[in-house]
Amino acid sequence: MSADILDGKAFAATIRARVAGHVTRLKDSHGITPGLAVVLVGEDPASEVYVRNKGIATVETGMNSFEHKLPAETPEADLYALIDRLNADPAVHGILVQFPVPAHLSERDIVARIAPEKDVDGLSVINAGLLASGQNAMASCTPLGCLMLLRETLGDLTGKDAVVIGRSNLVGKPMAQLLLRDSCTVTIAHSRTKDLAETVRRADIVVAAVGRAQMVPGDWIKPGACVIDVGINRIPAPEKGEGKTRLVGDVDFASAREVAGHITPVPGGVGPLTIACLLANTVTACCRIHGLDEPEGLTA
Amino acid sequence: MSADILDGKAFAATIRARVAGHVTRLKDSHGITPGLAVVLVGEDPASEVYVRNKGIATVETGMNSFEHKLPAETPEADLYALIDRLNADPAVHGILVQFPVPAHLSERDIVARIAPEKDVDGLSVINAGLLASGQNAMASCTPLGCLMLLRETLGDLTGKDAVVIGRSNLVGKPMAQLLLRDSCTVTIAHSRTKDLAETVRRADIVVAAVGRAQMVPGDWIKPGACVIDVGINRIPAPEKGEGKTRLVGDVDFASAREVAGHITPVPGGVGPLTIACLLANTVTACCRIHGLDEPEGLTA
Ligand SMILES: NC(=O)c1ccc[n+]([C@@H]2O[C@H](COP(=O)([O-])OP(=O)(O)OC[C@H]3O[C@@H](n4cnc5c(N)ncnc54)[C@H](OP(=O)(O)O)[C@@H]3O)[C@@H](O)[C@H]2O)c1
Ligand SMILES: NC(=O)c1ccc[n+]([C@@H]2O[C@H](COP(=O)([O-])OP(=O)(O)OC[C@H]3O[C@@H](n4cnc5c(N)ncnc54)[C@H](OP(=O)(O)O)[C@@H]3O)[C@@H](O)[C@H]2O)c1
Repeated sequence: MSADILDGKAFAATIRARVAGHVTRLKDSHGITPGLAVVLVGEDPASEVYVRNKGIATVETGMNSFEHKLPAETPEADLYALIDRLNADPAVHGILVQFPVPAHLSERDIVARIAPEKDVDGLSVINAGLLASGQNAMASCTPLGCLMLLRETLGDLTGKDAVVIGRSNLVGKPMAQLLLRDSCTVTIAHSRTKDLAETVRRADIVVAAVGRAQMVPGDWIKPGACVIDVGINRIPAPEKGEGKTRLVGDVDFASAREVAGHITPVPGGVGPLTIACLLANTVTACCRIHGLDEPEGLTA
Repeated sequence: MSADILDGKAFAATIRARVAGHVTRLKDSHGITPGLAVVLVGEDPASEVYVRNKGIATVETGMNSFEHKLPAETPEADLYALIDRLNADPAVHGILVQFPVPAHLSERDIVARIAPEKDVDGLSVINAGLLASGQNAMASCTPLGCLMLLRETLGDLTGKDAVVIGRSNLVGKPMAQLLLRDSCTVTIAHSRTKDLAETVRRADIVVAAVGRAQMVPGDWIKPGACVIDVGINRIPAPEKGEGKTRLVGDVDFASAREVAGHITPVPGGVGPLTIACLLANTVTACCRIHGLDEPEGLTA
């Protein structure tokens, strides 16, 4: 039996449609247009593409997008002055500083400067603490997307055995917190885990967030398990021609799909969910800032 | 084979001796005496005993103890004014408000008012976030004590399979974070866990923090595992006379000690570690506030 392949692009469109629905409601019933401010320091070409795509996606759902481009040599004080202005700006509900930033700036300090309720990347210490203590938090976008996809695929997650491979602040740890909130029994594995194969074998839900190409083979997967592959790894693809490469996940898709019940491909699985959840977080931030109900289908 | 019974009273004395050693060093080399302020609102008799015991233990290690007793009807603003004064007082390195507080006060807001670096109970959202993101945090005292005892008993915890039963903000969740920091493979179980027996059976380390008398029987324990019983439950003890009671843990000690490698009794196991770790956190707070090295043997 072959697994159901989860279409991340389609589900991202679903999330964006939910976002757009809430935006319409906020405009029509409350006269509020959610706004996302994205700050780019320097001229990294990849970052410019990301920022542009975020801006397009934001506007497509009916929200306002505010782009701020600063020169690479912007002094810390100037960046902080901008963040302070955005923190105070009632038209701005979400603030994101595109990383990496030039070396003279500290990512940790930048994140700490953003008002926690506008920290739509969910990277601040306060949001990690709110998430860890079961309060309303802004959750990191990629794990939030994985959670939404899992709920969409499996329904109620209560009591499921979930294994998260990876314990980064960006993916693994917030993923574990989100699954715990949804009452999974959660195991967090990492590079020091003794018997990763055995650990993965007992999981109903496997989230792989490692960054090692195809390291999880099919025979680690429990038959019928739901496999969420967060990893994005570029490997040589000589079959496409000399010097060519292709993207693969942390899971060996070919063997895992023979065993799993559901599996995300790479690319086209988790990847598209991240920006969709950035938009979701912006709507959530907007609702909270205005004291409105949590937007259905967009929160942890 | 019968388990090694871990003597919490003796290990608490070890921690207090470490604390006293650091206090001597801070006084002699830096002219600093660490100080702990404890605030009691109202006249709950049990709380008065706890506060008195904390004060005695603080002074015994050479630190300063500051006790503030406020009437039960103290307005929030007055309590906050006191906390603000303590936050600003250079002689105070740790601040603890004894809970429960009268109903007109909010525990969450009180904790949030304490400067995070002086929050020696480790209960604030910021400290939860620092712990979750692997930064220097004040960790909740009971799980910190369990971690220290585990290190003392097992040495390096890297790669061990740890199961934490319970996911409270006070014990279960910070315990999981601390074990993850020490590179255990950590599973968090709770009331919605499907097969708790199986989950516990694979653990090298079991921490039970549930509050259900003797719910973990010996045949759930992997032979040789280290069992840390945080639970404190009072049950009838007719054998001691009519209406008498006794304390038991969440683990069935009699059967578990036949299987485990190490086990904490109740009482006399984890219980005594909590106050010792409050003192440890006060020294840690003092060192951090003064920009000194982390005190060896007292931190996560
Ligand atoms: N789809 C998306 O939108 C998206 C978003 C973010 C990230 N990603 C991708 O997700 C992957 C992980 O990202 P990240 O930021 O979490 O990475 P990271 O910070 O490098 O963390 C990797 C984690 O994997 C663990 N690990 C390393 N080798 C391992 C092994 N052999 N066995 C088990 N665990 C191992 C590490 O354990 P230790 O802690 O013990 O070192 C660490 O916790 C990357 O491929 C990244 O590109 C994708
Ligand atoms: N030694 C000390 O100094 C010290 C300090 C603090 C606490 N304690 C003791 O430790 C125990 C736990 O304290 P706490 O504050 O963490 O308690 P708590 O806030 O009541 O949390 C109890 C946890 O146990 C889980 N649970 C309940 N029934 C369960 C079951 N049948 N199977 C598995 N898990 C179950 C709950 O799961 P859900 O989340 O799904 O409801 C919850 O996460 C209490 O006995 C307390 O007195 C001792």
